[in-house]
Amino acid sequence: MKENSVGLVTPKICHVDTPLHTVSGGVIPQYDLVYETYGQLNAAGTNAILICHALSGNHHVAGYYAGDEKPGWWEAYVGPGKPIDTNRFFVVGVNNLGGCHGSTGPTSINPATNKPWGPDFPIMTVKDWVVSQDKLRQHLGIAQWAAVIGGSLGGMQALQWAIDLPDRLRHAVVIAAAPKLSAQNIAFNEVARQAIMSDPDFHNGRYLEHGVTPKRGLALARMLGHLTYLSDDLMGKKFGRELRDKLKYSFDVEFQVESYLRYQGEKFATKQKFDANTYLLMTKALDYFDPAADYDHDLSRAMAHVQAKFMVISFTSDWRFSPERSEEIVRALLDNDKDVSYAEIESQHGHDAFLLPNPFYEGVFNAYLQRIWQEVTADA
Amino acid sequence: MKENSVGLVTPKICHVDTPLHTVSGGVIPQYDLVYETYGQLNAAGTNAILICHALSGNHHVAGYYAGDEKPGWWEAYVGPGKPIDTNRFFVVGVNNLGGCHGSTGPTSINPATNKPWGPDFPIMTVKDWVVSQDKLRQHLGIAQWAAVIGGSLGGMQALQWAIDLPDRLRHAVVIAAAPKLSAQNIAFNEVARQAIMSDPDFHNGRYLEHGVTPKRGLALARMLGHLTYLSDDLMGKKFGRELRDKLKYSFDVEFQVESYLRYQGEKFATKQKFDANTYLLMTKALDYFDPAADYDHDLSRAMAHVQAKFMVISFTSDWRFSPERSEEIVRALLDNDKDVSYAEIESQHGHDAFLLPNPFYEGVFNAYLQRIWQEVTADA
Repeated sequence: MKENSVGLVTPKICHVDTPLHTVSGGVIPQYDLVYETYGQLNAAGTNAILICHALSGNHHVAGYYAGDEKPGWWEAYVGPGKPIDTNRFFVVGVNNLGGCHGSTGPTSINPATNKPWGPDFPIMTVKDWVVSQDKLRQHLGIAQWAAVIGGSLGGMQALQWAIDLPDRLRHAVVIAAAPKLSAQNIAFNEVARQAIMSDPDFHNGRYLEHGVTPKRGLALARMLGHLTYLSDDLMGKKFGRELRDKLKYSFDVEFQVESYLRYQGEKFATKQKFDANTYLLMTKALDYFDPAADYDHDLSRAMAHVQAKFMVISFTSDWRFSPERSEEIVRALLDNDKDVSYAEIESQHGHDAFLLPNPFYEGVFNAYLQRIWQEVTADA
Repeated sequence: MKENSVGLVTPKICHVDTPLHTVSGGVIPQYDLVYETYGQLNAAGTNAILICHALSGNHHVAGYYAGDEKPGWWEAYVGPGKPIDTNRFFVVGVNNLGGCHGSTGPTSINPATNKPWGPDFPIMTVKDWVVSQDKLRQHLGIAQWAAVIGGSLGGMQALQWAIDLPDRLRHAVVIAAAPKLSAQNIAFNEVARQAIMSDPDFHNGRYLEHGVTPKRGLALARMLGHLTYLSDDLMGKKFGRELRDKLKYSFDVEFQVESYLRYQGEKFATKQKFDANTYLLMTKALDYFDPAADYDHDLSRAMAHVQAKFMVISFTSDWRFSPERSEEIVRALLDNDKDVSYAEIESQHGHDAFLLPNPFYEGVFNAYLQRIWQEVTADA
């Protein structure tokens, strides 16, 4: 375990008794949200930061579980002395509704049937997540987040927070995101979904009742995901056309990149046992994300009543959500003379860059969090 | 049927009795090549053009089969008065070995077992195709092609012809190709292969013996292919985030782009009944294509003994084989002071552009074929 880690952590449960009526027209009568916290909430309750996760992420943002060798998914940026400094901030990670890591989701028991929700779990949208995350805010006794922060789908949640609950956050940090998906983004999601749904072990989403999981489809979806997270350049540098062995001329693994993708797919479906219905829900939440739609499809109008200050970060080689997509967010904020900082970070790591160490990213991130900290201390 | 079409056409068969020893170490004892010809071979045999096909293409390049509404795949560019003018040239289209449209391939009977070759069909490389296509050249009594022309995987064959049989062609027209695949290119192929091979109906490639075909996997592979053939911009323009219907919040088709991809996948696997083993072989031929490998991985050295004059064409929005990849070919030719023309064509159609009408592309293509025609007539 590293020195500058929050160390051993334990998840907690927030039970919510009030039903959630989803945008999709579903009802979740009551639900659990599993979450983790690092650092101490100050007396005034002004130093709380919510971290929202991306497609396959969860509440385990930093630190270690007993016996685990691998830390949480954002260990590089969350911990004592790190950009999101747990010596200063009270940091909250939460698993989204519909997830498969402890929060109520498709693998939970549907009280109406006493069987797993499976495909009957309501389609989730980013707006629904904001509503449910706001219940956690109340549960924790926090009047206003110092910041809501996230990358990719997590960044979309930060943006939606600022639009839907403008007085509940002082800052939104939106990293490697977009104000809505492009047709190509949706197309990639659709191929991934079809891979899962056409797996004979999918059983229309009721695979748990059949004692199986659509591993093949899920592995394919994950392989495709990884393909889009890495840049062409980085793949070239990382793998080139390097052979695993000498040329065999067979359908076995021939090139290193094949080995990497097969391993990633296999690990996700078999070792990490990610739930296929959750994967489907997460891709749908991405597809449906479109905060401007509530404002005549005018993103500038959607931003008009935003109160949070914004930090928007993009990465040069990210072709999933390119810098141009982040700049749409920046422009809409500027149209309203909102307080926005923007950094396009040089990186060869593609979309994955938001998770990885990078001195420029770290510098920018750190500087912005210093600013938030100054506001917190000025208030005290 | 359009006026400037070659009209009704009928495929022919060229039977080759000499065994093909493939680069992969396999042997095809004898084989058929199905081909079509348009126009007339002149007395001197100097006006013949070979058209090589891409991943899912075949010998049916232009014209119509009786009863068919759709013409061959390159009707836009092959016919009377078109860039590849059948009033001038004797044009030959051939289905590659390993294909599924009449040439010997995985669905053919393996004489050793009296069952379909299936997965036992040798892995094919572009070099093997050049060897087999050269048998067709001999069969047709052509001493030297006026040109070998192809797009994508077809362009790679034109390039390999120029390297392997330098005195058998006067021109090579290499369109939307690359001198070898990048790691990302290979990765896309690998995901497509895994989709097919993990389909339970694949039966290790012996699906025909089981009376089934891996339709789901093949449809997924095709969906993924289409995703990479279109540019992000064009997808945006063509589909945007347009809904098929009003928002349903379900896993049914929601956005137009989903409908398009599902249709393409379904059509390929079910209506066109493309053979899955052929699809696998074609992607492998792409992966293994690397003519520089025989020359210490130095593409310039590979080009040193080339005699053909080259026309290289790329398209601005092609992210599968970007202009930079074509320029690698151009540079290697220039390193050897070879005769090369190069055009980067403005197009929003991505990789698909090589198949589609486009006045700039047409102009460049036409001008180069005029030049070839002048050489043919100067000889006469």
